[in-house]
Amino acid sequence: VRIGAVTAGQQSESIHRANLSAIMRTLHEHGSRTRSELVLATGLTRSTIRLLVAELVVGGFATERPATLDGTPGRPSPLVVLNPTGAVVIALEIAVDSLAAAVVGLGGEVAAHIREALPPERTSLDEVVTALAALAARVTTAIPAESQVIGYGVAVVGVVRRSDGMVSMAPNLGWRDQPLGERLAQVLEPRRPIIVANESDLAALAELRRGAGVGYDDLILIWGSVGVGGGIVVGGEALIGADGYSGEVGHIPVDPDGLPCRCGSNGCWETVVGSGALLRRAGQEPDSGAPSVDAVRRAAERGDPTAMAAFAETGRWLGIGLAGLINVLDPRLVLLGGRLAGSFPFVLSTLEAELDRRVQRAIRHLVKVIPATLGPDAPLLGAAELALDTLIDDPVAWLRDRAATVEAISA
Amino acid sequence: VRIGAVTAGQQSESIHRANLSAIMRTLHEHGSRTRSELVLATGLTRSTIRLLVAELVVGGFATERPATLDGTPGRPSPLVVLNPTGAVVIALEIAVDSLAAAVVGLGGEVAAHIREALPPERTSLDEVVTALAALAARVTTAIPAESQVIGYGVAVVGVVRRSDGMVSMAPNLGWRDQPLGERLAQVLEPRRPIIVANESDLAALAELRRGAGVGYDDLILIWGSVGVGGGIVVGGEALIGADGYSGEVGHIPVDPDGLPCRCGSNGCWETVVGSGALLRRAGQEPDSGAPSVDAVRRAAERGDPTAMAAFAETGRWLGIGLAGLINVLDPRLVLLGGRLAGSFPFVLSTLEAELDRRVQRAIRHLVKVIPATLGPDAPLLGAAELALDTLIDDPVAWLRDRAATVEAISA
Repeated sequence: VRIGAVTAGQQSESIHRANLSAIMRTLHEHGSRTRSELVLATGLTRSTIRLLVAELVVGGFATERPATLDGTPGRPSPLVVLNPTGAVVIALEIAVDSLAAAVVGLGGEVAAHIREALPPERTSLDEVVTALAALAARVTTAIPAESQVIGYGVAVVGVVRRSDGMVSMAPNLGWRDQPLGERLAQVLEPRRPIIVANESDLAALAELRRGAGVGYDDLILIWGSVGVGGGIVVGGEALIGADGYSGEVGHIPVDPDGLPCRCGSNGCWETVVGSGALLRRAGQEPDSGAPSVDAVRRAAERGDPTAMAAFAETGRWLGIGLAGLINVLDPRLVLLGGRLAGSFPFVLSTLEAELDRRVQRAIRHLVKVIPATLGPDAPLLGAAELALDTLIDDPVAWLRDRAATVEAISA
Repeated sequence: VRIGAVTAGQQSESIHRANLSAIMRTLHEHGSRTRSELVLATGLTRSTIRLLVAELVVGGFATERPATLDGTPGRPSPLVVLNPTGAVVIALEIAVDSLAAAVVGLGGEVAAHIREALPPERTSLDEVVTALAALAARVTTAIPAESQVIGYGVAVVGVVRRSDGMVSMAPNLGWRDQPLGERLAQVLEPRRPIIVANESDLAALAELRRGAGVGYDDLILIWGSVGVGGGIVVGGEALIGADGYSGEVGHIPVDPDGLPCRCGSNGCWETVVGSGALLRRAGQEPDSGAPSVDAVRRAAERGDPTAMAAFAETGRWLGIGLAGLINVLDPRLVLLGGRLAGSFPFVLSTLEAELDRRVQRAIRHLVKVIPATLGPDAPLLGAAELALDTLIDDPVAWLRDRAATVEAISA
C-alpha cells in the first residue's frame, strides 16, 4: 500500500520535478509542441511553462523556435523542440542470433545503429559481453561532444531480474543464472547506470510509445522468436511483476500432456507456437532457424498448402493461448511481433476463430489483434526508451549534473 | 500515458486532499496510530498532522485520545482513532446461492450483517434486486443517526462492467446482459453512489487489506464456487483491465479439446477445477452443489481414497492453471478462497508438484500458495472496502458535504 502524501519539506521540489518531467515526457513521446499546446497538455499555467522550458533550454535538452503565424487564433506561441543530441543513451541488444547497439537521443531519435550476427558457438557470457562492449564502443563514436550520456539500456532474450540484470534462464544462449548486469558494469563506462530487461517487455514498451500501440493503455505484445515471450502493458504502465519476471507467456501450459519444452515442462505455449512447431508442421527440421521460417512463409505466400496448413495450426494455438491471456488481462490490443509479425496474414483466421470461441463474450469485440510495426529493432528501441526514462522521470537531477559539469569546466 | 503535473491553480488543494487521504488510509488499513506514528508513516510534519487530524475530528471521522506514557522515549503523543460510525457504507452481495448485506464503517468495522438463501428458482434480475433492496433496508436500521452514509458496494458472481454495473454474464444466475447497476439505482437510496464489481476481485481486495494478503503487493486470489474466478493485485493495486473485465481465470483454456464449458468453449480451467469436476471425480452428481462438496471433503478428512483422489486430481489441474498465471504475472502470493479454501489440505501436494514442474525456475521459490482467511464473506467485505475508498480517496469532498449538512441543519 502506497502513501500518497507529498511531504511538507519537499513539496515545491517534488512539484517542480513532476512538472519538468511532464513537459519532457510530452515532448519525448508526442513530438514538438508550442508553449500553448504544453499549457493544454499539462494543465500548467503559461508562466510556469515559460520558466520550465527556459530551464530545459539552459540545460541543453530543448530549444525554442520563433512563433509562426499558422492561421490559428490567439497569440503566436514559440515551438518547443527537444534537442535529440542534448541527452543520449546507448541501447544494446542480445538477440537469438545477433547483437545490436544504437545511440538514441531525446525524442527517440536514432543517431547510430549496428547489428551483427552472433554465431551460435560464441554465446558464452564472456564472449557476448566482450562483443557487446566492442559494439558499444563503436556506436559511442557517433555521440557528439556536447551530449550528456544518460546510461545504457540492454535487451536480452531471456528471463532477467531487473534489479541487477541477473539472467536466470536464456535457453537460446545456453545460459542459466548468468550475472549479465554485473559483467556489463565491469566493461562499460562505469559511472553510468545500466538497466537490463527482457526483449519482449522492451518491444512492448517501444510499440506502446512509437509503434502500433500508440494511443493504447492496455495491450499485450507477443514476441515470437525460437520461443515466445510477452510484454504486458496495463493502464499505460509495463506490468513487471513482483520480481521483474512477469510476461513469460511462452510457458503457459496449453496442452499439459503435450510435447516436452526446453524449460523441462510439457505442453508450454511455445511448444505449439514457437518456430520449431511451425517448421515441424511444414515438414522441416525444427531447429533449422530463421532462414527456414522465411522459406515456409514464402511458400505460404505462393499458396503452398502444407505451409499454409502449418501456419493455420500455429494460428489455432496462438488463439488458444491468447484467449486465456485476454480473459485474464482484458486488454484492448494484442500485437504480434518478432517473427510472428510476418506470419500474421497466415495465422489470423484460425487465431480469430479460437478467440471467437474462447474469449468472454463481453470483451471479444473490444480487443483487436494486429501486427507490431517496429520490426526486429523493437527490443533495442525499447531498451533506449527505458534508459531515457532515467532522465525523463527525474530531469532535475540531470540539470544539476549538467550545472556541476559546466561549473567544473569553468573553474 | 499519464501526465504527472500538478496544475498550478490546484496545487495546495490537491496536496491537502492527498495528505488527508494518506492519513485516513493509514488509520483505515492499519488501525489507530499516535500523531508521532502518523508523522513517520506519512512523512508529513508534526504541525501538518495536527491540523489535518483536527479536520477529521471536526468532520466526525476521527477522535483523539489522550497521550499515554507507554515507556517509549520522547514526548507522549495523542492516539488518533477512526470513528467507525463516522462514515459507513452498505455492502451487498449476490452469491451463487445466497444474498448478503452488511453495514461497514471506517476501519472495516462490521456493524450489521445478514445473509439469506437465494432459492435457485428466484434468480431473475427483478427478484434478486427486490430481495437485495429488502436486505439493504433491514441492515440500514443499524446505522446510527450521526453516521454519514457514503454509498453502496455490491459484489456479484458474474462478469461485470464497473463503470455502470452491467452484468454481461452470470451463468449461476442465468443472466446475460442484465443492467444490475441501473436497476439497483432505482430501488436504493438514489443520491448515494453504487459501485458493482465481481466477487473474486472484491475478495482479493478484502484479503489484501484485512486477510491473508496483508503485507503483500502482488497476489492472485482464486475464488472457487461452482465456477472459478480470480482477483489479481499488481503493485498494491487491483488489476482491472481496460473495461473492468479482467481476472476471468475460469476461462483460461487448459485442455483445449476437453469438456464443454458453460461459456460455450471447451476445456476452460473451471471445467477441471470447479466443484462440478470434483463431484464427478468423486462419483457424485456434478450439479449437486455445496452440500455434496462438503460431503466429499468430510470423506477426504476420513481418508476415503475416492474422495482423496478426486481432490488430488483437482489439485493437479489447479497447479497447471496456476503455473500459467504465475509465469505471466510473477506474484509473491497465491490465495485459494471460497470453496477452495476448505479443499486446501487435499489439493496442496499435487498442486505444488505441478508448480515445481511448470513455473519458471527463477520465481518458483518466491511464490507461496496458502488458503484465504476471511471465509465466505470476503466478497462482501471487499465490496465495503471499495465503497469506503470513495471517501478515503477524497475526504475533502465529504468534509465539505458534512459542513453543508451542519449548516443546513443550523439554518
